[in-house]
This record gives sequence, structure tokens and C-alpha cells, in this order.
Amino acid sequence: MRVKLSRLAQIVGGEIIGDPDLIIEGIESLEEAGPNHITFLANPKYAASVKSSNAGAIIVSPEWKDLGKNLLVCEDPYLAFARISTFFSTGDRSPLGISPQAILEPDVSTGNDISIYPLAYVSSGARIGDRTEIHPGVYIGKDVRIGCDCVIYPNVTILAGTIIGNRVIVHSGTVIGSDGFGYAPSPEGYFKIPQNGIVEIGDDVEIGSNCSIDRATFGKTRIGRGTKIDNLVQIAHNVQVGEHCAIVSQVGISGSTKIGNQVILAGQVGVAGHLNIGDGVRVGAQSGIAHSISPGKDMSGSPAIDHRTWLKCSAIYPRLPEMRSLLRDLQKRIDFLEKKLNEGK
Amino acid sequence: MRVKLSRLAQIVGGEIIGDPDLIIEGIESLEEAGPNHITFLANPKYAASVKSSNAGAIIVSPEWKDLGKNLLVCEDPYLAFARISTFFSTGDRSPLGISPQAILEPDVSTGNDISIYPLAYVSSGARIGDRTEIHPGVYIGKDVRIGCDCVIYPNVTILAGTIIGNRVIVHSGTVIGSDGFGYAPSPEGYFKIPQNGIVEIGDDVEIGSNCSIDRATFGKTRIGRGTKIDNLVQIAHNVQVGEHCAIVSQVGISGSTKIGNQVILAGQVGVAGHLNIGDGVRVGAQSGIAHSISPGKDMSGSPAIDHRTWLKCSAIYPRLPEMRSLLRDLQKRIDFLEKKLNEGK
Amino acid sequence: MRVKLSRLAQIVGGEIIGDPDLIIEGIESLEEAGPNHITFLANPKYAASVKSSNAGAIIVSPEWKDLGKNLLVCEDPYLAFARISTFFSTGDRSPLGISPQAILEPDVSTGNDISIYPLAYVSSGARIGDRTEIHPGVYIGKDVRIGCDCVIYPNVTILAGTIIGNRVIVHSGTVIGSDGFGYAPSPEGYFKIPQNGIVEIGDDVEIGSNCSIDRATFGKTRIGRGTKIDNLVQIAHNVQVGEHCAIVSQVGISGSTKIGNQVILAGQVGVAGHLNIGDGVRVGAQSGIAHSISPGKDMSGSPAIDHRTWLKCSAIYPRLPEMRSLLRDLQKRIDFLEKKLNEGK
Repeated sequence: MRVKLSRLAQIVGGEIIGDPDLIIEGIESLEEAGPNHITFLANPKYAASVKSSNAGAIIVSPEWKDLGKNLLVCEDPYLAFARISTFFSTGDRSPLGISPQAILEPDVSTGNDISIYPLAYVSSGARIGDRTEIHPGVYIGKDVRIGCDCVIYPNVTILAGTIIGNRVIVHSGTVIGSDGFGYAPSPEGYFKIPQNGIVEIGDDVEIGSNCSIDRATFGKTRIGRGTKIDNLVQIAHNVQVGEHCAIVSQVGISGSTKIGNQVILAGQVGVAGHLNIGDGVRVGAQSGIAHSISPGKDMSGSPAIDHRTWLKCSAIYPRLPEMRSLLRDLQKRIDFLEKKLNEGK
Repeated sequence: MRVKLSRLAQIVGGEIIGDPDLIIEGIESLEEAGPNHITFLANPKYAASVKSSNAGAIIVSPEWKDLGKNLLVCEDPYLAFARISTFFSTGDRSPLGISPQAILEPDVSTGNDISIYPLAYVSSGARIGDRTEIHPGVYIGKDVRIGCDCVIYPNVTILAGTIIGNRVIVHSGTVIGSDGFGYAPSPEGYFKIPQNGIVEIGDDVEIGSNCSIDRATFGKTRIGRGTKIDNLVQIAHNVQVGEHCAIVSQVGISGSTKIGNQVILAGQVGVAGHLNIGDGVRVGAQSGIAHSISPGKDMSGSPAIDHRTWLKCSAIYPRLPEMRSLLRDLQKRIDFLEKKLNEGK
Repeated sequence: MRVKLSRLAQIVGGEIIGDPDLIIEGIESLEEAGPNHITFLANPKYAASVKSSNAGAIIVSPEWKDLGKNLLVCEDPYLAFARISTFFSTGDRSPLGISPQAILEPDVSTGNDISIYPLAYVSSGARIGDRTEIHPGVYIGKDVRIGCDCVIYPNVTILAGTIIGNRVIVHSGTVIGSDGFGYAPSPEGYFKIPQNGIVEIGDDVEIGSNCSIDRATFGKTRIGRGTKIDNLVQIAHNVQVGEHCAIVSQVGISGSTKIGNQVILAGQVGVAGHLNIGDGVRVGAQSGIAHSISPGKDMSGSPAIDHRTWLKCSAIYPRLPEMRSLLRDLQKRIDFLEKKLNEGK
């Protein structure tokens, strides 16, 4: 793809300083960009590298107007970078149609311009929307509904009844709709509770690789519109995740917990079951959430406490040995003082 | 399925208050149940919702006998719910047989009424018991033995030599029999130790999605009868898990550790290698077990300590800053007292 | 396989005490070895079991020369065991070639003596080296390069552009080259940043089951030569892992972090993004690394601190309640002393 810098400025709504007719063939990092690449400066700490970059043009924020290079000046250079990178990434892959080496049970309904690759398996009653791609090794269960413009990467498993919105991306190895972990204790051991519910995933959700999202016991496990989930994440049965959340790698959310909108859970966080996590809550890496959290709070630690308190406590923790000796020292001095005072009587 | 309430009472051994001839077509949650559904009240905090429920009948414990609705009174309503839900869930799926689109190496032996779906792969020497289901994308290695009435969900990998009992359920993406993590340090780097053992899984075990259960170096990695494993769990080589344990999501158990019977490991727990965890031990979420534990103990924290002590310590932890200032304050006051007393001499 | 003990001594460079012509048919553990097996004593705590072992011969270190059995004496018995076990494990599996039931897109290039099993999928532009095995259910993306003597176990997913060295083992369920977790916040929600880089894996790397290794945003996510990765590990985009590292199960490494050579990360460790972890660093299980670490340091805890300090602090933590009461007690005693002293004025 070859476009003029002026075309990119139109896409992101930015202002050009320098040559608007410069031909750009792709976007690269500061180090790797050549004279027909555009790059970007989003983090001021990389400003020094800009001088030595061979990039033909650079996306910058207004404060860097005077770099003396071809610039595309934008209020939000990182977002502009994302948009231009998307522009260059969108190949014109032509749809594959339905491979004769894919297995489709009877009664599958498919939209226009879809791709179902060899070795994919689609069960009866499934409905696949326009332009959606189902890659090799994917399993689509009975009555699954997948919207338009989705990409289901190789070796994903989507079990019976799952409902998936539009523009959803599911990365390899992820399992959607496995049974929730539910048993009734009985004299003969754990008695399995049938998991009769489903999973429902909103529009514009992206789910990383090797995640597990369990179906509900009754009703739905739900992932809200625009939420992004990293790799190896566990979402238990009947969890409700709100919209535009970011759930980082290796997080685990226990059964029936409700996560609000725009919540951020950092890596390896664990959330206990049946809790309410308010809108806008942010939780630090490896934290353990044992209680519901009000909207807007920042929490850290296991068990989690207010993030700022946790910062202070974490700083004191390595001083526990010192505190303990001081405490013992004070105890001796008080013993001595008391003795002296008693003698003084 | 349509049955009389009296039939359900027979199944669970309960007593009917109200109309024994009421026709029940399924089990639903309190909110979603209609006049031909049965529902259940297992948790007293949902008692208020019972009044507004449209359920035709409700499973309750004896203390709720006077609700003025059609009731099925049982000592253990939760277990009764599980049994009735199972009764309604058991469809009469007719077995598929062996799909011509499945790949079977020579010398595979299969029982009656089995289902091997398209795109499943079964290696030579494998033996599959009666009524067992092998779903699409499943890999069964050489000489694997799987008992009767098992369900192996799509995209499961069961590697050579694994032995699986009866009524075992393995959810999608799980890998059984991958190599243990064993190396001998050598001048040229880590030297791989061949993992020649197998994995053996007892009757009535259920294993969640995306778990990893490694084969033994020698001998067997073993999961005991009736144990239930949630998603994304790591079981290392030569681990021995006892019977009727509950191992919650994202737990990791290191090599050669022995877990007793009826042990509960909550989410994200880590257990070090070569330990003995006694029968009936319960470990709180995110705990780290670095030492063996005697039977019946409750442990929490990382490193784990007695659960009740941990509760107290966790409550004090956020007060470390306050403790530290108090300590410094006391130090100053003692300095002053000592000075004063010395002056008084 | 049947070999003389003297042959094994040649392989590992050890000295025989006893019968060099003894026929050995395999290697087994102390308990399971019979008269035609060799076993090993690497850990002195198993010395007692040696007496009762039926093993035909035992690999020991020089200090055990007087056991009165057939011995193979080596400086490093554990490494000798690994070498002999490898010798017995290396079957002469004949290569399968390319199964007609595998799916190969046009323009795949393959070396000599390879095995591509049924139900594997290889995309166009892929190059597979000599003697490499691609098992059922494996997906190989566009332009992937895999070296010689690799084993790619069933249901592995290797996405477009990935470069893999020689003698690399990838266990089932692992995903290499899924998209990194990168978004630019926008008024409409998270805007996906295309992940255009690749993953590059050095020679002699082994990767466990159900791992996720993300492709770089630009450039490469890199795993250095000889590094061993356990199961369920998360490696984020643009991470650089050095040579001969050991990364234990359920570790998560965040984006753009650089791990040196010979680093050991124990189970469930989390490492934040954009950090530098020096050569030879060792991190204890479940630790959380929030800052860069200088070479050679041992760290533990979440957030991680010096390992020896952490040991001391962990030992004091359960005494927090006791420390708190002592502190309060001292406070009262000082109050009293001050009061007394003031009265005494």
C-alpha cells in the first residue's frame, strides 16, 4: 500500500508540517522506520531516538511541532498511530467461502463473504454472520450464534448455545462455554450440577489465547461490549463483566461476580465469587479481591486494600525485622525505667 | 420431558406439600421459573424472591414448609436440585458411532454405543469404553485407555499411555500427559530428562478446560476417584491427588507433591514440590504452600500460615503505617523519659 | 534395547564397579528397577532405599563406591541418569512423511524425513526442517519457519511469521504468535493496535502445554536459546527472554520486559512490563516483580524484595497480632510512666 502523507492526515484528523505529498508505505517503530515509513512519538522518553530515526514522517503531539522533520501533528499521537497502523494492516484478504474440508453439520446458516477453513467443525443450528472467519481446528457447538466481522482463530472451542456479537476476536486455544465448576456435596462425593446456561459476548470484545469462559448454571455468563481480555484468563459461571473493561493476563473471576463498566484488573488478579465490583474500579497486579468494591476505587494487595495504603504498607513490610527489634528494645528500656522508678519510690 | 411432581419426589426422596400431579417440564432459577417449572431455595437470603417467583413448585428444606406454594420438601434442597437438574438434563442423545471423518490408526478397540466425532484422532492401541464420547479435534495418543461413560470435549489432548476411569469428563483445551518439567543442569545448559511415566485418572473425575496434567518421570501422576478440577489448573509430574478433592481454577501443584483425600485448594493457590498435604486440608485463595500440612488444617497466605492467624494478620497489615508511627512516637517518649530520669539523678 | 553396562559407562564417561558385561534393558526408579535395569542415587535421602532395590546396577557419585552392588560411578549421577534415560528413550521412530489427511496450502517447503500427521494444517510459505514432527491438530500459519529435529505436539497453534530454531519442543495446547494486548484509549473505547511483529524462538527451547506467547507489536518477541518454559506460562508482546532461563508454570511476563540469561522464575511469578531483569536473577514462587533487578539477585514476595529479607519478614508476619498487643501494652506503660513522672514533679 502506498499513500500520501496528506491521506493519513485525513484519516486521523491531524495537521501536516512538511511535505504532504510524501509517499508512505507503512508504519514502523522509531528504530526500524525508513524514509517511506511513518512512525510515532507517544512517550516523551523516546524523544532522543527521534533525532536518529530515518522515518519519512513522525506522528507527534503539538508540543513537538519544531522537530524539523515531516510531522503529522495530532492531539493523541498514540491513538493516531493505532488508526494508521490499522489502515495499513487491513489487507484485502478475499473471503475463502466454506472449505470442502471443513465439517458442517446440517442446518448451519452462514452470511456473505465468510471464511470457514479446512478442519473447522460447525454444529447444527449454528449461525455465522457476514465476513466472519472461522479458522482451522475451530469447534462451533450446536446453536451457536456469531455476528459479523468476527475472527475466530485456530483451535478455538465455542460450545453449544454461545452468543457472540459483531467484530469480536477470539484468539487460539480459548474455550467459551465449558461447564461451570458446580457440585452439591453428597454422601457419595461431589454431585455434578448440570450447567444449563450459556455465554453471551457483546460487540467489539477481544479475547486472548487460552482463556476459559464457563457457561452459566442457569441464564448467562456475560462479557459486555468493548471489553478486552488478555491471555489465560478464567471467567467462571454466571460472571457478569461490564462494558469497556480491561482484564489482563491470568486473572481469575469466580462465580456470579458482577464487574462494572470500565474496570481494569491487572495481571494475575483473583476475584472471589458473588461480589460487586463497581464501575471504574482499578485493581493492581496479583491482588486478591475478597469483598465488593465501590465504584472508582483503586485497590491492591492480597487481600486487597486501598491502593495508596497498600503502597505505604508495602514500603514498611521489609522493615518488619527492624520494627520488631525496636519494639523489643523499647520493651527493655521501659522495663528498666519502671524498675528505676519503683526503686526511686 | 414432562413429569409429575410426584415422580420428582421419588427421585430425591422428598415429601410433597401441594399438588403431586402438577406437570413439571424443567428446572429453572427462582426468577426464570414458570408455572411448569420447579425451582429451589437453598440459600435463605433468596427467601424474599420466593414470594414473587412464578415457579410451579419449589424444592425447600423442612423449615420452609409453610410457604403456601407447591413444595418438594427435602433435607438437602441443593443436592435435590442437582439430582432433578441432572434428571432433566439427561437427554437421550443417540450414539454417533465412529464417524468416517474421524482418523483411527490401526488396532483401536472401542466399546458399545460410543461416539467418535469427525476430526478426532485416535492412535493405535487405544481402548475406548462403552458410551464414551470423543468430540471433534480430540487427540488420543498411543495405548490410551478410557473407561465407560466418559465425555472428552472438543480439542482435548490425551497423550500416549494415559489411563482414564469411568464417568470421567474432560473439558476442552485440556492436555493430559504432556512432559513434566525436568532437566539436569549440564555444562551446555539444561539437559532434558525423558518423561517416561504416565497419567492415571480415577472414576468420576471432572477436569475443567485448558488444564495441564503432566506425565510422570517414572511411574504415574495420579488423580484420585471423585476429584473435581476447575479450569487452567497445573498438575506437575508425579503429583498424587487423592479422592474427592476440589481444586479450583488456576491452582498449580508442583512435582511429586502428594495431596490427601477431600482436600480443597481455592483459586490460584500454589503448592511447592515434594510436599505432603494431609486429608481434609483446606487452603484459601492465592495461598502459597511451601511446607507439608497435617490433616484437617485450614491454611491461608503466601507463605501460608494457619487460616485464623492469617485473618488476624491481614486485618493488622493495613495498620502497619500507624504501628510504625506509634513505634517512633513511643521511642521519642522513652528517650525523653530516660533523659528526664537521668537529669533527675 | 539391550546393552552392556560397559556401553552405558562409555556414554556418560563413568567408572564401573562390578560386572561390566551385565545386560541392561532400561532405566527405572529405585523401587521399580529389576535385575536388568539400571537406576540412580542422586539424592542422599534415598540412600536407604538403595539396599532394598532390585536394580541390576546403580548410578552413584564417588562417595557411594562401597555399596557392594554393580555401580556406575559418575561425578554427576543426575546428569548421567538424564543421558542414559535419553539413550533408552530414543526409539527409532520412522518418519511418517506427509499424511494425505494433513492439509497443506500451496508453497510449503519441507525437509527430509519429516512427519506431518493427519489433521495438521500448514499454511502457505511455511518451511519445515529435517526430521521435524508436526502432530495432529497442529496449525502452522503463513510463512512460519521451523528448524530441524523439532517436535510440535498435537493441538499446538503457531501463527503467521513465527520463526522457530532447531531441536525445539512445543507441547500441546500452546499458542505462539497470538496478538499482544495493546489498545489506545479512544472516546469510543479501547482501539486495537495491530500487532504486526512476530515471535522468534531459539535452538533447544522447550515450551510446556497451554502456554501463550504473543507476537510483538513491531519487531520480535524473543525466547533465547536453551530456555525451558513450563506449562500455562504467559509471555506478552515484545518480551525478550535470554538464554538458558527456567520459567516455571503459570508465570506471567508483561509487555516489553527484558529477561537476562540463566534467570529462574519460580511458579506463578508475575513480572510487570518494560523492566530489565539481570542475568542469573532468581525469583521465588508467587513473587511480583514491579521494578528492574540487577544481575545475580535473589528476590521474593509481592512486591518482591531481597529474598533473605523476605524470609525474615515472612517469619515475623504471623507475629503481627503479638507485636500489635505489645505495642499497645508499651503505650499504656509509657502513659503511666509519664503520668507518674509528671506527678512526681
